[in-house]
Amino acid sequence: MRFAFFGDVVGRAGRDALAEHLPGLKRKLDLEFVIINAENASAGFGVSENSARQLFDAGADCLTLGNHSWDQKEALTYIVREPRLIRPINYPPLADAPGRGANLFETASGKRILVMNVLGLVNMASMDDPFAAVDKQLESCPIGMACDAIVVDMHAEATSEKMAMGHFCDGRATLVVGTHTHVPTGDHQILPGGTAYQTDAGACADYDSVIGMDKEEPLRRFTTRIGKERYRPASGPATICGVYVESDDRTGLATRIEPIRIGGRLSQSIPSLKVAEFQAG
Amino acid sequence: MRFAFFGDVVGRAGRDALAEHLPGLKRKLDLEFVIINAENASAGFGVSENSARQLFDAGADCLTLGNHSWDQKEALTYIVREPRLIRPINYPPLADAPGRGANLFETASGKRILVMNVLGLVNMASMDDPFAAVDKQLESCPIGMACDAIVVDMHAEATSEKMAMGHFCDGRATLVVGTHTHVPTGDHQILPGGTAYQTDAGACADYDSVIGMDKEEPLRRFTTRIGKERYRPASGPATICGVYVESDDRTGLATRIEPIRIGGRLSQSIPSLKVAEFQAG
Amino acid sequence: MRFAFFGDVVGRAGRDALAEHLPGLKRKLDLEFVIINAENASAGFGVSENSARQLFDAGADCLTLGNHSWDQKEALTYIVREPRLIRPINYPPLADAPGRGANLFETASGKRILVMNVLGLVNMASMDDPFAAVDKQLESCPIGMACDAIVVDMHAEATSEKMAMGHFCDGRATLVVGTHTHVPTGDHQILPGGTAYQTDAGACADYDSVIGMDKEEPLRRFTTRIGKERYRPASGPATICGVYVESDDRTGLATRIEPIRIGGRLSQSIPSLKVAEFQAG
Amino acid sequence: MRFAFFGDVVGRAGRDALAEHLPGLKRKLDLEFVIINAENASAGFGVSENSARQLFDAGADCLTLGNHSWDQKEALTYIVREPRLIRPINYPPLADAPGRGANLFETASGKRILVMNVLGLVNMASMDDPFAAVDKQLESCPIGMACDAIVVDMHAEATSEKMAMGHFCDGRATLVVGTHTHVPTGDHQILPGGTAYQTDAGACADYDSVIGMDKEEPLRRFTTRIGKERYRPASGPATICGVYVESDDRTGLATRIEPIRIGGRLSQSIPSLKVAEFQAG
Ligand SMILES: [Fe+2]
Ligand SMILES: [Fe+2]
Ligand SMILES: [Fe+2]
Ligand SMILES: [Fe+2]
Ligand SMILES: [Fe+2]
Ligand SMILES: [Fe+2]
Ligand SMILES: [Fe+2]
Ligand SMILES: [Fe+2]
Repeated sequence: MRFAFFGDVVGRAGRDALAEHLPGLKRKLDLEFVIINAENASAGFGVSENSARQLFDAGADCLTLGNHSWDQKEALTYIVREPRLIRPINYPPLADAPGRGANLFETASGKRILVMNVLGLVNMASMDDPFAAVDKQLESCPIGMACDAIVVDMHAEATSEKMAMGHFCDGRATLVVGTHTHVPTGDHQILPGGTAYQTDAGACADYDSVIGMDKEEPLRRFTTRIGKERYRPASGPATICGVYVESDDRTGLATRIEPIRIGGRLSQSIPSLKVAEFQAG
Repeated sequence: MRFAFFGDVVGRAGRDALAEHLPGLKRKLDLEFVIINAENASAGFGVSENSARQLFDAGADCLTLGNHSWDQKEALTYIVREPRLIRPINYPPLADAPGRGANLFETASGKRILVMNVLGLVNMASMDDPFAAVDKQLESCPIGMACDAIVVDMHAEATSEKMAMGHFCDGRATLVVGTHTHVPTGDHQILPGGTAYQTDAGACADYDSVIGMDKEEPLRRFTTRIGKERYRPASGPATICGVYVESDDRTGLATRIEPIRIGGRLSQSIPSLKVAEFQAG
Repeated sequence: MRFAFFGDVVGRAGRDALAEHLPGLKRKLDLEFVIINAENASAGFGVSENSARQLFDAGADCLTLGNHSWDQKEALTYIVREPRLIRPINYPPLADAPGRGANLFETASGKRILVMNVLGLVNMASMDDPFAAVDKQLESCPIGMACDAIVVDMHAEATSEKMAMGHFCDGRATLVVGTHTHVPTGDHQILPGGTAYQTDAGACADYDSVIGMDKEEPLRRFTTRIGKERYRPASGPATICGVYVESDDRTGLATRIEPIRIGGRLSQSIPSLKVAEFQAG
Repeated sequence: MRFAFFGDVVGRAGRDALAEHLPGLKRKLDLEFVIINAENASAGFGVSENSARQLFDAGADCLTLGNHSWDQKEALTYIVREPRLIRPINYPPLADAPGRGANLFETASGKRILVMNVLGLVNMASMDDPFAAVDKQLESCPIGMACDAIVVDMHAEATSEKMAMGHFCDGRATLVVGTHTHVPTGDHQILPGGTAYQTDAGACADYDSVIGMDKEEPLRRFTTRIGKERYRPASGPATICGVYVESDDRTGLATRIEPIRIGGRLSQSIPSLKVAEFQAG
């Protein structure tokens, strides 16, 4: 199975870049499934129904969220109607959070892919144990048996917690990929047990910015500690950042992971489909 | 000028990999100066005189530190004798911190390179303003005039604070590179004003680990919240991670930045010296 | 029912002051039950079996813990044998934490008192939701029916989270009292629903100190950011700090709460038993 | 000299209670100077010119601020015109913060009192070292010589940092009092060197609340992690909380500190002026 995951889309620049590059990439890589983290899709804060639709139109099959899930209040009701929108799974029991934290999708060719979104705890918002929440999902849906692929979007700040989640899921998930820091990491690898891993997918954003936001206000706050304006997404050409993964449908484990960085300022990384694979697909 | 910067060395695996790969790389890339962040060089915590010597022997010209500077108490006295060891610059005035937070080095060919180490504040130890501390150095040593290159090691957790530091120094430093997260980022670029930038250099460490540490104890603490043993560095083959930079000696600004990832599990990235450059050097 | 709760005992000074003052106070106030937070009883860090015994000998019927529960490793096995020792209740499911987070005690006169210890999340160690964990206990043991009194030790940093826990339990617990900050608060009150509340019980410690620790090292670290020695408990005369509570055995709700501050430097507050109550008792 | 300090005023309930109780208390205690922390005076967030005037009319001679200083943007310009408004002193050098962090006032009888406001760092906003900032003020204005009294408003979260500030100033200031937690502490004392100290003055607020705010929304957020509405100040009768201090004008050191808690739900504490003192005054 061939699929891709893209990190936090920041505002219009990110949405536009996905609309520009994603359709061609899907064809080129013969992607069966595309997941995009959309927690910053609407003007940098949360996701509106309108922004979500643009991402679905660009080729997303599933959108994940994070600590900014509800910055646009309409997301609280939109998610109830939209099963392709996935919020963090580790809300505490009294939260009665709307929507779902994991969902099993069926691709056009009939493959089943489980996607979940989970919030880390280190230097983040307080949530219940992300490891226990993920464990419960992995145990109830054994990879290679109950589904063909499992993707864990580990939305977290600390590299330690993300790497720990990678190892925790190793051999039980197809891909563990981090989001939230808005910077792609260069540590993509297949862990010893067969799970593809990258600490952060990076943002789909203009990288002449501060994590996708126009530089001026963040610089003011860092140097003076006194804010003046709201943060606004930077509007220059965005780089869409993510990972491309190939997996073995018999085991559900990964056979390849490559970084994707297309457009904008960052060094470009565009996976290529080998001919043999394409024919076999 | 051609120089390289390597991120946090974690224990023996990191030191050994540098001893193995760095001498050849220096020759291959004709490096004039090598900086290594050594805050985790001694068994993962701080730097001893012995560990520092191994890194100098491997080819380091300068070692930087971070929030783990004094984990080995001997570093408090060693740094007073060793001007090539640089600790964070933004201690508060009452600290009377030993050693220095910045130093101007002269290379074999007579070029002058200013290196400083600074601690970020977001989700880190409390220190005085890193921006003001760096600003003071940059203003007192104008690049291209009082020195040929300036390197800022921004030892910080948050990607936002690191990117802000990059822009803050843009046009005034040759390289702003982050350390501390122990994961290399894939966002190397030359900022609009001419400063090379990468959010994190990554660690020189075994990447089948949790940020360079043996997986078992971190996984135990994340899942149970009850520690059992000390953290120990992972002992598998390390990847040395860093950046290679070329700068224009007339302006001090960067003309090229490439990631370095050699050895171990991560995808390899080895810059090559173009023939013309080598002759011109 | 008449009972007392004392906050974090810090080292020998705190243990000695309890040994000196508690036996007389139990007689004077005709206390049926005494709870002491012991997370700092052993040299300021955790609780050993030996320290626990001194507190039981002084008159404690139950000891609670906190974020320092396991600083003395022997507590991990001691707690399995000692049902009077209560650790935080909100460990995540994978923790399999030793001991118990709540226990129902029977007093000499046959009254049943449920005691639980819970860790707050704001600026503390990561744990599962404290509100959900407490809710489960309160629902399974209705006050005035399944027991005569319920005490919630809310071990937390933030005053907001502690006050929220007070209101969350109001009408369902006899006492919600905070621990962890090592400073008694002056806000004891009976909440609208009948639950006695004080944001922090305060420490049983020498108050010529920094939260019970010898001043020198904390002052050094605050002013220089560079530690030199371990923290040691201050050794001057301690003030034992806590609250005295009277409750209605028919409802389990509180009818009186008074602060206790005896010995040492702080202004003294010693509740007195009214004659009528004593006879009725 | 006799003066009083009141902690964070939360919204209208706090302002009204001060208007009701402060004028009489000033007469009764023959107060020469009154300081009020006003960082939450305007609907719980920051201070407007209008709110400040109400507090001056109620009897304040000086208002201090904190981490909420600029929640009302008009405060950024108002403070430039109003020397009786004091913001945190430890902004970094590049901040160029408006207004002042310390001011020397002269009372009607010609006594000089220096008031400063400083932000703690532990679990708070990042600022430059509070100890260095306070030290500079204390050294430039020796108590008993350059002024008759010095008050340090230590606006901080952690009890440890506040107690450390108390000891740091001991013998050099008349009063070190904490603010920010919105809960009065019961640990008022005169430190060994003669400085009056209380970890937190407490809020001037309705205590049937979560730190002065209406309970509903904080409880929702704590239990569900999903916000619904803005925080609003609780509107029940407020308790005004603070400390009353008497000092020796020859030395500037404290001779007495008593808690003040008047009105509302908390146990009342109203200092009384001894006849002999009144005549001596
Ligand atoms: Fe994001
Ligand atoms: Fe996020
Ligand atoms: Fe570090
Ligand atoms: Fe490090
Ligand atoms: Fe604690
Ligand atoms: Fe404690
Ligand atoms: Fe505050
Ligand atoms: Fe406040």
